[in-house]
Amino acid sequence: MKKILIIGTGGTIASAKTDAGFKSVLTIDEILEKANIRLKNGYKIDTMDVLNIDSTLIQPEDWEVIAKETYKALEDYDGIVITHGTDTLAYTASMLTFMIRGIDKPVVLTGSMLPVTEKESDAPRNLKTAIRFAMEDVSGIFVAFMDKVMLGCRTSKVRALGLNAFMSINYPDVAYVKGEEVIYNIPKEKFKPKGEPQLDTKYDPRVVFIRLTPGLDGDAIDALVKTGYRGIVLEGYGAGGIPYRKRNILGKIKEITPRIPVVMNTQALYDGVDLSKYEVGRKALEAGIIPAKDMTKETTITKLMWALGHTKNVEEVKKIMHTNYADEIRS
Amino acid sequence: MKKILIIGTGGTIASAKTDAGFKSVLTIDEILEKANIRLKNGYKIDTMDVLNIDSTLIQPEDWEVIAKETYKALEDYDGIVITHGTDTLAYTASMLTFMIRGIDKPVVLTGSMLPVTEKESDAPRNLKTAIRFAMEDVSGIFVAFMDKVMLGCRTSKVRALGLNAFMSINYPDVAYVKGEEVIYNIPKEKFKPKGEPQLDTKYDPRVVFIRLTPGLDGDAIDALVKTGYRGIVLEGYGAGGIPYRKRNILGKIKEITPRIPVVMNTQALYDGVDLSKYEVGRKALEAGIIPAKDMTKETTITKLMWALGHTKNVEEVKKIMHTNYADEIRS
Repeated sequence: MKKILIIGTGGTIASAKTDAGFKSVLTIDEILEKANIRLKNGYKIDTMDVLNIDSTLIQPEDWEVIAKETYKALEDYDGIVITHGTDTLAYTASMLTFMIRGIDKPVVLTGSMLPVTEKESDAPRNLKTAIRFAMEDVSGIFVAFMDKVMLGCRTSKVRALGLNAFMSINYPDVAYVKGEEVIYNIPKEKFKPKGEPQLDTKYDPRVVFIRLTPGLDGDAIDALVKTGYRGIVLEGYGAGGIPYRKRNILGKIKEITPRIPVVMNTQALYDGVDLSKYEVGRKALEAGIIPAKDMTKETTITKLMWALGHTKNVEEVKKIMHTNYADEIRS
Repeated sequence: MKKILIIGTGGTIASAKTDAGFKSVLTIDEILEKANIRLKNGYKIDTMDVLNIDSTLIQPEDWEVIAKETYKALEDYDGIVITHGTDTLAYTASMLTFMIRGIDKPVVLTGSMLPVTEKESDAPRNLKTAIRFAMEDVSGIFVAFMDKVMLGCRTSKVRALGLNAFMSINYPDVAYVKGEEVIYNIPKEKFKPKGEPQLDTKYDPRVVFIRLTPGLDGDAIDALVKTGYRGIVLEGYGAGGIPYRKRNILGKIKEITPRIPVVMNTQALYDGVDLSKYEVGRKALEAGIIPAKDMTKETTITKLMWALGHTKNVEEVKKIMHTNYADEIRS
């Protein structure tokens, strides 16, 4: 008999109306009851509430707790579903990818855009997709939403209201779930376990993400470093050059990259960063910038936190950032 | 006879191979020659080079120059095309929307993802779209790319490499251009001139854009304000709540909003910000956050700079941010 554990962390899926607006209050058992989830014979579902908060409030310390509980449960279950608010779901999925590696079961995060207490809620649909995929004989961290299953470390939230809120970025969807059927987009063999299971929750939360905009000056970067941020993600333009005209951000970056890793992601949703083509990009590389390549923003931030938990040496951080652990980066 | 002016500012469209990578070097006349643009009888095209730089290097001072030259030229021409690097094209289009209002002609920004010197370049196609639309009897600031014409203040760059690099966000495309034909998606009457032509280039460039991420603390906001940034755009999660658990960003925001406008945009590409629904959102509103509603990130930043050029009073800034000047916000 397949055994699935559903771990609750709160979020819209767990929300009900209160005087202060919708608020995360329902337990996993209450969610399953309201979602009217009926299971076929031969399945057993257990539940566990780990947190019950709006995911705007998720902090790196919570990732450690979720990772530890999930890792422990993998011994006793065939698959795990984690319900989570959508706001930081892609961040949590990305960090779990690094904190729990080499596992041989599926861990599937899901949530909903409308509270399970609302009539038109997408909670039942998303829960069914997640539970069904958690019974598959695959390994890794996934996100299930609107019948789609995506690789956790490739998922971003792209809609603030629309139900089809998540997209797989620079990577195909893994599968679609139609009732009891799972239709793979990527050969299932791709998701066989690699290596030994490892729980590795070391991280440094002092990472900051700032957007390059016309007018931004090096003093902003300086101020963040002096405040104690130990890793910086720059959200650059397009392919990833750094400004040096009138306001010399490039010069400031050059100054700090021997001590502080500066990773370049891009404002463009698709295609990632390529610093080799344009003069402005080559200058960025010479200044010691670490290109995020085709990683999502959520993966770039969480991977940098995780890397900084293992080393403060910028060259070592770069090596970790460019290591492909779970298909999160085209290496 | 229709008279069009093409203003060159550089960018990929003006780039050619150099030892240091592709670099912006061609004049507008050279671009038109290489793009092999042939005009029908009855059209007259003049050219003017205002800048020749990679648009990563565009700074707010350049917007003032481009706005002034464009405004001056509107007296003598029926339409204006501005060629521009794609990296900051959406920022320039947004700022021009505020700096040049009430005009009665079309100003159409365009560029290309591949240098005009490359065989497969999209420069000829984009130039043709832009020039054709600049001959229309409409008014406003537009972006032309891949046969599409979008409202300038609704445009974002969403691809770092793909040719269909721009999208109209939370707003339909204005029109498609097929050869000599312009097919409107939105009734043409929508783009009749409103009010009197105005050149209004006052702005304050000290605006910074920072992403909410788990782990970010109020000290980052504090450091940026102390460094002299006078406006902050927060890129929040989903609908736009602010964290206050473990790390109290909300408390910090509450402290600074009487003096410094803090505008909330969202990491989600679509749907914009709605602070009314969730408890975390309502708390953000109470803390004095100005929701960006459905404005693009580029419009939010440039509009805030422009607002701060007119007043430092936070309530006045809020009023300007929520005024709908050119369909950039659903008011």
